[in-house]
Amino acid sequence: MSRISISVPSSVANVSCGYDVLGFCLGYPCDEMTVEIKQTQGVEIEHVNGWSIPTDPKLNVCGAVAFEMIKKLNFKYGFKIKIIKHIKPGSGIGSSAASAAGTAFAINQLTGNKFSKLELVKFAMYGEEIASGAKHADNLSPVIFGGFTLVRSINPLDIVTLPSLNELFVVITHPYIELKTKDARLIINKEIELEKAVVQWGNLAGFVASLYSKNYELLSKTIKDVIIEPQRIKLIPNYKEIVDSASKYALGSGISGAGPSIFSICKGKKNAELVLKRIKEITDKKNTTYSLFLSPINTSGIEIIN
Amino acid sequence: MSRISISVPSSVANVSCGYDVLGFCLGYPCDEMTVEIKQTQGVEIEHVNGWSIPTDPKLNVCGAVAFEMIKKLNFKYGFKIKIIKHIKPGSGIGSSAASAAGTAFAINQLTGNKFSKLELVKFAMYGEEIASGAKHADNLSPVIFGGFTLVRSINPLDIVTLPSLNELFVVITHPYIELKTKDARLIINKEIELEKAVVQWGNLAGFVASLYSKNYELLSKTIKDVIIEPQRIKLIPNYKEIVDSASKYALGSGISGAGPSIFSICKGKKNAELVLKRIKEITDKKNTTYSLFLSPINTSGIEIIN
Repeated sequence: MSRISISVPSSVANVSCGYDVLGFCLGYPCDEMTVEIKQTQGVEIEHVNGWSIPTDPKLNVCGAVAFEMIKKLNFKYGFKIKIIKHIKPGSGIGSSAASAAGTAFAINQLTGNKFSKLELVKFAMYGEEIASGAKHADNLSPVIFGGFTLVRSINPLDIVTLPSLNELFVVITHPYIELKTKDARLIINKEIELEKAVVQWGNLAGFVASLYSKNYELLSKTIKDVIIEPQRIKLIPNYKEIVDSASKYALGSGISGAGPSIFSICKGKKNAELVLKRIKEITDKKNTTYSLFLSPINTSGIEIIN
Repeated sequence: MSRISISVPSSVANVSCGYDVLGFCLGYPCDEMTVEIKQTQGVEIEHVNGWSIPTDPKLNVCGAVAFEMIKKLNFKYGFKIKIIKHIKPGSGIGSSAASAAGTAFAINQLTGNKFSKLELVKFAMYGEEIASGAKHADNLSPVIFGGFTLVRSINPLDIVTLPSLNELFVVITHPYIELKTKDARLIINKEIELEKAVVQWGNLAGFVASLYSKNYELLSKTIKDVIIEPQRIKLIPNYKEIVDSASKYALGSGISGAGPSIFSICKGKKNAELVLKRIKEITDKKNTTYSLFLSPINTSGIEIIN
């Protein structure tokens, strides 16, 4: 095989109480990527639908990942990477993670599947570093493993896959403002109150328990962020109004990644449709343009198209 | 029924990564308590084996709990509480929690079982307030519910019972120094680094996942406390030496509650026996007197003797 086409999903990281550790994979939107071996060295990157993303492989997420893998594999040729990007860059649903994870996944497929999923996340982290200045893995892990994942430790990297509840659906509310992860990280205080940390880790532990015990009521109680969200909501237009309107039918809402998208987790597709409708009634009245979409939790991650 | 005798177990709180939220119940040591209805108002407390604990019910853990229940029940008589205390006060394995939980449990039994386990924890928290100055529930919850418990939220109180792994055994290493929870809480910084909090909540989430997935390897990796333990180890004689010697056969060790006891969690009784032996070789050489004991996880909590 010298060429592969894949569908690479979006994802939600920093899930409320799980800042920097908890993420889940979405079924929609997905990028399409085609990666092929070329007979010359180096990496070529083409963005078919022309976002303002650097195509110089040294400055590009995919390039950073590809170069690391080429080095590790001692690979004598290069790769051509073509991306049809449906996950808007800077939207907070893992656009850079999709590019990084897709590159790692595709190159692994093209070179004999030598790497584990954990190793693919490690390679993809070089891409996240280019995108956000930090080697985080909380978007990459759900894209590569599927479902809900916990980045238990970043150094050494340790990823725990968590059970997914198949009745969960997610509404993403995406305001068309660009918010760089780098910038959203800068406003976060480096010191926090121990008392709030205890609340936060109690909720995160409860969230994990809720997934294993299929306890939607408990899950709903734990989708709270007392530390990061209060600092970031000012960056996100109409945050409180949107979250309040979702609360009637959603289990909980929060900032997706570093924003500006908002996720609302719902039990059942019907509730998710009602949440989407209610949010749309609000966003339709605003000057900011929004896109809204509804997705199941994607338990399989990246898929091979051909 | 006008009289009840119960066995009330010790417990471990602040389990490493789970400061203020995670606890488990021990099979040994246990206090024996006999509570009987007396035909006059008020609460009488007798400590059979004479610890220096106030017997004035207004200053006593059991008294505080009993008075709250009498008030709530609008009970016209009083109670006589007799305690044979085997859980040394100030040892860090929930001595005050046992007295408080035992009182709540016994009075509930004697007055028609009107309260849920959650409500019993709430009553018992009045006792913990007397003992430590804080209304915490992380020792009480495992004593009343059994096994591992998560105090997901203290206000409103929400307790999540977690699965117990039946191969887990615990070695408690108890140096005979008294350490008041109040004092051990005072030395803790009220502000912590976000970066460390992320490590801590990643581990706690992983710990919870390890119990559900019966993953002893993961459990072992998560028994770490990067926030509280580094501040408290100076209060505990020979801490590092003891923990290091346990590490060969234990899954992990940490400070039990606010100390000075140390818990070592082991997979299988055989490993626990080896851990106990290795620790004893160290403590036998020290000037501080130690008591060491080995216990399974107690999944049933308080038991009625007659």
